[in-house]
Parts: sequence; C-alpha cells; structure tokens
Amino acid sequence: MDNRIREHAETLVDWSARIESGDDVVLSVAEGAHDLAVAVAEALGARGANVVTTYASEEVSRAYLRAHAGDFETSEHELALYERADSVLILGGGRNTFATADVDGETRQAAARAKQPIREARMATDWMSTVHPTRALAQQAGMSYEAYRDFVYEAILRDWEALAEEMAQLKQLLDDGNEVHLVSERTDLRMSIEGRNAINSAASVAYDSHNLPSGEVFTAPYDTEGEVVFDVPMTISGARVRDVWLRFEDGRVVDFSAESGENTIADLLDTDEGAPRLGELGIGMNRGIDRITDNILFDEKMGDTVHLALGRAYDACLPEGESGNDSAVHVDLITDVSENSRLEIDGEVVQRNGRFRWEDGFEP
Amino acid sequence: MDNRIREHAETLVDWSARIESGDDVVLSVAEGAHDLAVAVAEALGARGANVVTTYASEEVSRAYLRAHAGDFETSEHELALYERADSVLILGGGRNTFATADVDGETRQAAARAKQPIREARMATDWMSTVHPTRALAQQAGMSYEAYRDFVYEAILRDWEALAEEMAQLKQLLDDGNEVHLVSERTDLRMSIEGRNAINSAASVAYDSHNLPSGEVFTAPYDTEGEVVFDVPMTISGARVRDVWLRFEDGRVVDFSAESGENTIADLLDTDEGAPRLGELGIGMNRGIDRITDNILFDEKMGDTVHLALGRAYDACLPEGESGNDSAVHVDLITDVSENSRLEIDGEVVQRNGRFRWEDGFEP
Repeated sequence: MDNRIREHAETLVDWSARIESGDDVVLSVAEGAHDLAVAVAEALGARGANVVTTYASEEVSRAYLRAHAGDFETSEHELALYERADSVLILGGGRNTFATADVDGETRQAAARAKQPIREARMATDWMSTVHPTRALAQQAGMSYEAYRDFVYEAILRDWEALAEEMAQLKQLLDDGNEVHLVSERTDLRMSIEGRNAINSAASVAYDSHNLPSGEVFTAPYDTEGEVVFDVPMTISGARVRDVWLRFEDGRVVDFSAESGENTIADLLDTDEGAPRLGELGIGMNRGIDRITDNILFDEKMGDTVHLALGRAYDACLPEGESGNDSAVHVDLITDVSENSRLEIDGEVVQRNGRFRWEDGFEP
Repeated sequence: MDNRIREHAETLVDWSARIESGDDVVLSVAEGAHDLAVAVAEALGARGANVVTTYASEEVSRAYLRAHAGDFETSEHELALYERADSVLILGGGRNTFATADVDGETRQAAARAKQPIREARMATDWMSTVHPTRALAQQAGMSYEAYRDFVYEAILRDWEALAEEMAQLKQLLDDGNEVHLVSERTDLRMSIEGRNAINSAASVAYDSHNLPSGEVFTAPYDTEGEVVFDVPMTISGARVRDVWLRFEDGRVVDFSAESGENTIADLLDTDEGAPRLGELGIGMNRGIDRITDNILFDEKMGDTVHLALGRAYDACLPEGESGNDSAVHVDLITDVSENSRLEIDGEVVQRNGRFRWEDGFEP
C-alpha cells in the first residue's frame, strides 16, 4: 500500500473525525475508494471503533433511481442507522464522474426529499467527507493518474495544526469586522458580515469543519453591493462555466453575464428567492492546492483564491436564533486573488495579491 | 449487461425474497459482486423497495480485525439497521477466497461473538444469500471464468416452482417416516427422523429456504448408527479433506478416518459435545448443478448427492419447543449416491442410484 493512503486514513480518523474507542462509525465507500477504505478500516480497528461499511456506488444508485416509479419513502432502517451513529466517514472517489448523468432531475429531487431526515441525522453526527484519488477524478482534472495522486496528497497531508493556527487569525478579523471589501481589476464588492461567525475550517469536526482537505475561513455575508468577476472556470450541473460576472444591489443579483454557461447561471439564479443572494464568503488558505482540478472539494480551498456561494448560508455562521439566507442551492464561484487584488475588512487591507498581513512580503 | 445477471437479480428479488413495495431492504455487496448489485438495485427500484447498500469487503474486514485489540462490542447502529430491516440480500462473490486467511481464529471468534445479536436480528428478517460468479470462485472451482459463469447460472436460473413441487414429494415421505437407511458400497447408516420436520428448500423465504441456488430437502436426524463414507472432496477450514469415514454408535461418532485432512476432522469432532453428532441429513435435488466446485452453497444441492452435517441442527426442522443437536459448528460432508446406492425410509426404497421413486428409470 502507498504509505500516503495510510497517512490519509490516519489523518481522517484522528485529526479530522477524532474517533475514539467504542464510537459507532458508518464508513461510506465510493466505487473507486476501496484502497482508502482498507486503510481507514485498519485505523478504525486500531482505535477500537465499531464500523458499518456502506457501498456508495453511483452505478447502483443510478439503476435504482431509473427503475423507481418516483414515490420515494424515507427508509426507516437507514434512518435508524444514522440516528445511532457517532461519526460518518464519507470516502468519495468514483470511477466515472458522469455515472448518474442519465437520471432525470425530477427523480433525483424526489429521492433527495425523501432522504432529508436521513441527511439531517447524518449531519448531526461528527461527519467527514474526503476523496480517494481515482482515474476518473484525474481525468476530470485533466491530469495523469500519478500526478493527480501527488496533487491530492499534497492537499490532504498538511500540518493541519499549524494551518488552523494561521487561519485563526483571519477568523478573528472576520468575527470582529463589520464589512468586507473585495477589489480587483474587474471586481469591487462590499458585503456586511456584522454579527456573523467565521468558521476556521481546519478539516476537523473540532473546528466545525467536515471536509478533508479543507483550509478555508468562511462566513455568511449579507447586504452585498457592487460587482464581481469569477475568473476560475468550473463545471456546474454538467455545464462548463467561465468568467461569470454578477452585479448586486441591496444584497441581490440584479445583472449578470458569463463568457460561457450563461444559461446555467440564469437557471441557478432563478431557482428560488434565496438563489440570487450570497450564502457564503470563503477565503482559500490551503497552499498545498496549487491548481484548479474542477472539483469543488479542492478548488474552493486553494490558496490565493476567494469564493462566494449563491444560495444557502451555513447555520454555523449564524448567531443563535438568527436565520441566514435560505435556498435549495449552494453554488460556489471562485475568483483568483493572487494578482492586482486586495481584501479589506472595515477599510484595513487584510490580504493583497494573495499575501496576508501576517505574511512576509505583505504590502499594506 | 449479461442478461443472466438481470434474470438472477429478478429471481432473487421476486421468487426468493418476495420483495414488495415499501420493504426496507439491506443489500450486502461483496467486493466482486458489483454487477449483480446494479441489477438487484434495478429490480428493487422497480418494486418500490427502500435500500441500504452495505459493502461486505473481506479486505476491509481483514484490515479492521487485524488492527483491533480484540475487545469487540456489538455495534448499536448496526443492530438498529438490521432490527428495522424487512429483508437482507447477501450478494457473495469475492476476489480472493483466501482474503482473510491471515486473521487469527481467536480474533475471528471474538468478533463473531460480539456480532451474535446482529446475526440474530438478520436471521429474523427474510434474508437470502446468493453468489455472483467471480474469477476467484472460478479458480476455486478449477474452472475457466466463462465456464464457471455458465455453471452458476445453470444452478440458479431453474424452474423453481416445478422443483419445489417435486421436492414436496420427498418432504412428505420424510415428514411421515421414522427411520432413514442409507446404503452404498462402503456406507450402511441408520438415523431416526421421527417427529422431525423436513424443509423443502426451494430457494425462497416462502419455503424457509435462504440460499439461491438451493434445491435440497433436509431434516434433523438423531440416534444415528452405522458407518458412512463421504467420497466428495472438499475444503474445510482451509484444508483439503478426502474420503472421510465415520462410525456412529448411539448417535455419536466413535471412530473415524480420512484419506486426507484427518487432523481437520479430529479438530472438528473435538469442538464441543454436539460436534460428533449429526445436525442435518440433506438430499441434493438440483440437477442444474452437475459438478463439485468446492463451494458448499452449490455442492450440497447437487443432484444425486446426499450430505450429512456434523453439529448444529436447524430450528426449522424441530417441532415447537423441542431442541435439536446444539454445537458451535455445522459442517456438511457429501456423498455421491449416483451409483450402487439406495436411500430407504422405513424399509421402502425412495431413491436408488440417484433415481427417485417418482422418476422414470427408478428400480424399487
């Protein structure tokens, strides 16, 4: 076994999910994630956890969904499983990123609605989502398998404790601040963050963070004004999207364009009342991620990028009792801030051309 | 998809497990059983069942078991899953029949003890066990992959309704009978079956049968006297066993030998008080199985064979309130009855040289 697979498993079990003896764990394994599952099982055995291993095969799902008449029910046995679980470890890594491309949207949504109580039970556990590098993901990234594996482990096998400490500085600034101002060549955007909690997303349940890799600090902005260009290309609902431009007034998108994928953005904005409003401002701080691979788990955490999500805000960013932007969607759009760019909080420059104020080479 | 995979799935879901709309099903998928899982998921979707898919990977189990300190607990979340399931469909088919060969017996047993409540919950559902033909199983059978697949589907894709009707005749004779007498060149064995229920094992929960393929009628004999030779070679606990000879007095093995694997038989007989007594007399009636493949799921159902199991009797064979032979083991041994052989019930020949009394060519 590639020793990095074992290190990945140990990072997941110890740093991320904080598994302890006697924990009831659900281990969810994608079609291509077998080798990581073996390594995670070894770590879980060594910690004395109890494990149920589920098979998250997209081909199995596709066959089931396409054959079903559409009157989905909430599975009582599945709900019972998750209600009694302490942790859920989701090992992604499929064999074909388009495995469910021919399941129609209505069926997908009906199944998702029936699964809502199960999803809530799962989200109430110490859940973590990670990914095993597969050939399908390498292909999506436009990379060789060998190079892609190097990329993935560079992103995942970080000194998370050190990164968490660094990110804590940005979290503090966002928690204390009232307004964020993002400026670059084609971007001039102001957002209120007053009263909102920033999350130091350090790839661990101990930090309210559920992705491995992570490495971003995010909050839930509102009252957005101005315009922004997202120059990092990505795939949204199967469509390639490039150079999205949005103009906000009173917190809402009032005009938009895109060099490609404009219809996809139009459909997205049209989803519901919350879709044209921001749910998230995230600042990527994982410098182990040095390229865009068309996988949001990695892209949004890349160092020297900022992302904004249209749609739903995370509860963790909201003070007790307050509700944030609500929507059926949450779609991240990413902008490169490595050049000709600055991020200000309450008028003070916090990041310029990718450098933070506590870093060497920062120019105020 | 090979259309036989789809027929296998439909046989499993409809004839065997009798799945109905709204049933909560656990689908357990071995490492090599992906293609069958896809076909079964399709059938389950079409019937409107609810599915949790588990990954029964022996490599995952091995890693977990070898790393564990041995103080296993019953997983509460796994127990909850099975307690709320209506049906459990177990799709066997590994990629290496020795995948867990280096897990020590003590660890295995400790894990099995902790899983006992889960096993009981699973056995209380409408569970079915079947197997997807894999290269590993072809190798174990000493066959090419293509030929092995033909063999498996010949065994599984039977006219089960017709076979169930034929087997009902033998069940009736065994239910009404008091003593079975098995005679061949080196075998002369008498067993009491008075008061015991025979099971018409027609590969369906509707027949108290949990294996696909099946095709045997079995009961729980006692007061065994005489001697028997098992001339069908098999693998028991990893050891090749050939030509086992047993002599019974007062229902108990008092002498034995084997051409190979004698130590394995000695260990087996030494397990506990119930191990040297018979738990099962089974008569193979599936003529789709025409060769021995060193897989008990198939071998014991082969037409023109009879098997006897040392150890535990099945509750289904016992009248309400009566307890049968109890043991931690249940090991089937098989004898060929196609030549120079007869099976009598209360002195009447029921089968001679493989032919039953209701078949053409039967000689009384």
